[in-house]
Amino acid sequence: MKTLALVDSFGIDALRWIERDPPRPGPGEVLVRITAASINYRDRDIVAGKRALRLPLIPVSDACGIVTAVGAGVARFAAGDRVMPCFVQGWADGRIPPVESLPTLGGPLDGVLTEYGCWPEAGLVGVPPHLSDIEAATLPCAAVSAWNALFGEGALRPGDAVVVQGTGGVSLFALQFAKLAGARVIVISSSAAKLERAKALGADHGIDYVERPEWGSDVRALAPEGVDCVVEVGGRGTLKQSIVAARNGGRISFVGFLGGTAADFDLGELSRKAIRLTGIRVGHRASFEAMCRAIDAARLRPVIDSSFAFADSIEALRRFDTASHFGKLCIDFVGSEGRK
Amino acid sequence: MKTLALVDSFGIDALRWIERDPPRPGPGEVLVRITAASINYRDRDIVAGKRALRLPLIPVSDACGIVTAVGAGVARFAAGDRVMPCFVQGWADGRIPPVESLPTLGGPLDGVLTEYGCWPEAGLVGVPPHLSDIEAATLPCAAVSAWNALFGEGALRPGDAVVVQGTGGVSLFALQFAKLAGARVIVISSSAAKLERAKALGADHGIDYVERPEWGSDVRALAPEGVDCVVEVGGRGTLKQSIVAARNGGRISFVGFLGGTAADFDLGELSRKAIRLTGIRVGHRASFEAMCRAIDAARLRPVIDSSFAFADSIEALRRFDTASHFGKLCIDFVGSEGRK
Amino acid sequence: MKTLALVDSFGIDALRWIERDPPRPGPGEVLVRITAASINYRDRDIVAGKRALRLPLIPVSDACGIVTAVGAGVARFAAGDRVMPCFVQGWADGRIPPVESLPTLGGPLDGVLTEYGCWPEAGLVGVPPHLSDIEAATLPCAAVSAWNALFGEGALRPGDAVVVQGTGGVSLFALQFAKLAGARVIVISSSAAKLERAKALGADHGIDYVERPEWGSDVRALAPEGVDCVVEVGGRGTLKQSIVAARNGGRISFVGFLGGTAADFDLGELSRKAIRLTGIRVGHRASFEAMCRAIDAARLRPVIDSSFAFADSIEALRRFDTASHFGKLCIDFVGSEGRK
Amino acid sequence: MKTLALVDSFGIDALRWIERDPPRPGPGEVLVRITAASINYRDRDIVAGKRALRLPLIPVSDACGIVTAVGAGVARFAAGDRVMPCFVQGWADGRIPPVESLPTLGGPLDGVLTEYGCWPEAGLVGVPPHLSDIEAATLPCAAVSAWNALFGEGALRPGDAVVVQGTGGVSLFALQFAKLAGARVIVISSSAAKLERAKALGADHGIDYVERPEWGSDVRALAPEGVDCVVEVGGRGTLKQSIVAARNGGRISFVGFLGGTAADFDLGELSRKAIRLTGIRVGHRASFEAMCRAIDAARLRPVIDSSFAFADSIEALRRFDTASHFGKLCIDFVGSEGRK
Repeated sequence: MKTLALVDSFGIDALRWIERDPPRPGPGEVLVRITAASINYRDRDIVAGKRALRLPLIPVSDACGIVTAVGAGVARFAAGDRVMPCFVQGWADGRIPPVESLPTLGGPLDGVLTEYGCWPEAGLVGVPPHLSDIEAATLPCAAVSAWNALFGEGALRPGDAVVVQGTGGVSLFALQFAKLAGARVIVISSSAAKLERAKALGADHGIDYVERPEWGSDVRALAPEGVDCVVEVGGRGTLKQSIVAARNGGRISFVGFLGGTAADFDLGELSRKAIRLTGIRVGHRASFEAMCRAIDAARLRPVIDSSFAFADSIEALRRFDTASHFGKLCIDFVGSEGRK
Repeated sequence: MKTLALVDSFGIDALRWIERDPPRPGPGEVLVRITAASINYRDRDIVAGKRALRLPLIPVSDACGIVTAVGAGVARFAAGDRVMPCFVQGWADGRIPPVESLPTLGGPLDGVLTEYGCWPEAGLVGVPPHLSDIEAATLPCAAVSAWNALFGEGALRPGDAVVVQGTGGVSLFALQFAKLAGARVIVISSSAAKLERAKALGADHGIDYVERPEWGSDVRALAPEGVDCVVEVGGRGTLKQSIVAARNGGRISFVGFLGGTAADFDLGELSRKAIRLTGIRVGHRASFEAMCRAIDAARLRPVIDSSFAFADSIEALRRFDTASHFGKLCIDFVGSEGRK
Repeated sequence: MKTLALVDSFGIDALRWIERDPPRPGPGEVLVRITAASINYRDRDIVAGKRALRLPLIPVSDACGIVTAVGAGVARFAAGDRVMPCFVQGWADGRIPPVESLPTLGGPLDGVLTEYGCWPEAGLVGVPPHLSDIEAATLPCAAVSAWNALFGEGALRPGDAVVVQGTGGVSLFALQFAKLAGARVIVISSSAAKLERAKALGADHGIDYVERPEWGSDVRALAPEGVDCVVEVGGRGTLKQSIVAARNGGRISFVGFLGGTAADFDLGELSRKAIRLTGIRVGHRASFEAMCRAIDAARLRPVIDSSFAFADSIEALRRFDTASHFGKLCIDFVGSEGRK
Repeated sequence: MKTLALVDSFGIDALRWIERDPPRPGPGEVLVRITAASINYRDRDIVAGKRALRLPLIPVSDACGIVTAVGAGVARFAAGDRVMPCFVQGWADGRIPPVESLPTLGGPLDGVLTEYGCWPEAGLVGVPPHLSDIEAATLPCAAVSAWNALFGEGALRPGDAVVVQGTGGVSLFALQFAKLAGARVIVISSSAAKLERAKALGADHGIDYVERPEWGSDVRALAPEGVDCVVEVGGRGTLKQSIVAARNGGRISFVGFLGGTAADFDLGELSRKAIRLTGIRVGHRASFEAMCRAIDAARLRPVIDSSFAFADSIEALRRFDTASHFGKLCIDFVGSEGRK
């Protein structure tokens, strides 16, 4: 089967098309023909060699596919089912596993830029029926992270206020999910055009953080007591303002760190405002399934920026680097916009 | 000031129009001219003498009014502000007070069928601007109970399934709030017409519990794993089916007991299904305020069945007994549909 | 292998000694030589045919044993490890599974009155090193239930007050665990002698519920605001007093119903006092493991009433019926007090 | 009345003994004759002018005293009662108030280095009977912070592992409370002698962080999966190791920042390990009262390093700067070791 892999070195130019034998499903395992994938910031970093991972490695974690065979004892899925593999394998529900290096797709486990994947049935989730394969391929990492940033720790109630940073995959899902939950959503972005698109998706307010570098105060003008939840994807460069934006006792769900991981905020503010800063590591399968029920009930559709043919995966990864997209960049393995 | 009170005996025929001096606000207190009230089942029971309360007593707990004077040190409100008194006085936030008989309006504390009320500023909440006085008067007991039944214990996430029983005040608020939160809502009622109206308010499904006395199974047909939350207002006669309807690990928020308070369910099912049965005692002021933020953000409007002039309060109470209404029965102190 | 089973009818007299082939561990499975078992009320009811279960059935859920062989891919255990099977198989962590009939040992799944058992590695927990096999055999059902009754829903903080009912297995574990957590513990019992033994185990107060049928009021004399948690094992006949004993906003963890399952309490009190009544279905493996860490850290020892040889299992079940024991009745498969 | 105040400038040398009229209790207020006080790091910083506060100011937040008079309507206390003022005034329970500058004693509100204080009855807590006034004076800030660091967010269960940093006031209370709750406690300190004293108080393990600057790894040697809770008082210089020490999904309760407030850790670790970093702002009155119940139930005694006469308050503040103490530095207003 055709596979795109980092074989002996990292870097986008080091990606190689190789041929591998399709895996065979052992007991409790499911063989999946990949039909679509989507790209996350993490995939870009992994390809670039910014994470300490061993080679060879098939990159990219998020996919949708069709079950083509099942191993002995498999009960949850049958051939023909559309499924998505969980980003963190082996975490069905409850506490995050205590192991040092979590078994996550796209590194250290092999990812999905390949024609077939094989996973334990416990590591797969069924696709909401109204979604195309390409839409479903956007969910495993970005959407589940956004879901748990909002709902994983403590409740989000209607009327609560949420800050969403930028218009990347996690952020647009956070915007959509927070609106489903009846929250008021404030989006910050560097682009007036993207803010308009965010409003079209339901955002109540938009703030241009380039024009307003002290955007935390602008959030406070809109939500005088501060917001209940910030879905933090910036890290260095945003966290300081997120703390300003949060209410006393509010929470900041820490999903990503596009601005860098070196903390540069004042720790005293954490205790002064009694803020909860919660690291989000995507989430367990049960949260993925709960999210799918919500997506299904609301007939919610992920925002797709564009999709590339599997053969153009390297181009897709390059395009990701430009950060000019709005919504997810996807890879289509079947030459169309998916099965639907 | 004109006041309707139970003076020396209980019963709707024992209600007397009396004249009282308006109260004077002491330090920290606020004088409120009542502009609207609304009736709850509890008020009917109290007037009927079904609760052990002392006389004389001004009945009815829920009202809206305008601040006309404030005592020394009052900072939260000023003359002209529209306010609603909290059902439970002296419970600002956190745990329910440990006292045996909670200080609740309409008994043991005097209620609102009177032209002026006086409360500590800590016992009042501001009115969402878009609501009329009559609409605001529906909130303190029924709406806050519904809010806490859904959000007070544990989260309600988009896509969760909720059962709402009947179309009384609590139940319609529960329906509206659950929809705000992105839940799927199943309403049971004895009337096809009321089910239609519930669907117009957003209910996803309706079940006629007269036709379908084993309606718990019908809920399971719609939500095969069972629902996440039942807002229980029936007690005897419904709880058994609520337990059938709930998912393993689900919760039943116990707000009322229109069908009687003598339990008639099988206790074994509670542990077998790991169900949480939570008694709801309306809620604290902070939950009232959070609810008002949600009502404000969504421009949600309470469902009013009809409103009676203050002079016709006794007729309003009699009408309540017929249970033919859909939404709240209100009392208008100012001769119109409120100020707005 | 020697096995005691209900073959074609229920009833203690219908138990038959049969010979079966030992199971062979499939992929991911672990073969365990049973060294000790312990009996719960549930086992008595199941043998008596009070639960709708299919025959043939090996009764009794709780055991300790030694791993003798492992199937392909097993990583958590190796031959020679001492293990206990989880009461609910297939529930590693998080939410209770949504299935209607949970896969629990001793019915519907086969239990442990047999020389060898075979379980998925995910359904086993390691034994705290300081415990004998017989002591470990008391944990899977009674101790995990007590643990989750106290810690499964909401926190128990030092200084909180807890009521424990009687001196059966669950109740003595609840007493021991609540004391570990710094709680004040009030035990009710029908026997002055058992109350003395409970005090020797750390109980702060004892109430004879035969002498004091309104024992809820006696609890309130000791804890004027009411207790934070009642570990309810009586059901009919105790729940009414448990509600009196609980504080406003307190919780009643509903584990068992020795007095019957037909509810006979006043539902109105649940909402008046805002009580949370939580059904406990033993608990997931993660809670079992957390409990073992606590048992290990405190070098806590379960209370054993007496132990019978495997060959005398029927006598042990009969003895259980007399309810004269204090602590657990155990079955020793290796002819001694276990390996230690 | 004799009062020690910062009158027109900050700095320990700027403290002035002044004479003020004792306050008179207004409605709902309570006049308290101060009998003892205790010093916190925060007091030192405030005296040094490191916080933006207005002058004149009476410093020091923590005290015990005797009620000498009550204003109109006071019901919770009477003359002769021993009381402690809450650090955060106006926060009875539930969420932290949304106001920007919380009304805390010792700045911006006047503190307790004065013979009489006057507070709303809602801002006082009764003293556990077995404590001396000096012991009680150690509780309002340090002990309540430690309590909420452990129990305020999420449960602490027996057998959980906790890291406590150093042997200051907060840390020794955290050690004592965590042991009450059945946790395993690892203390880090720069002094072998202090570690020995911590062990005498119940610490399970001690690590010298000067000898072992990578002490996070040493914690992992003792608790291989990482600890459930770190009570963080160091901030810069410790947080990095705290993150190493915490388990995946663990929490770090951020109480203080003796090492500085400029964050210097890697943000990526927060999401990688799904850690919750919670700012602790002492806590509400309800938590103070719950803590007092626990202290009462366990007859726990705070650790007092030494106490100074009120007249020697400045010397006490200077002594605090040396950081050579173990336990609390106290001020005795009545010339003895308190009333008991």
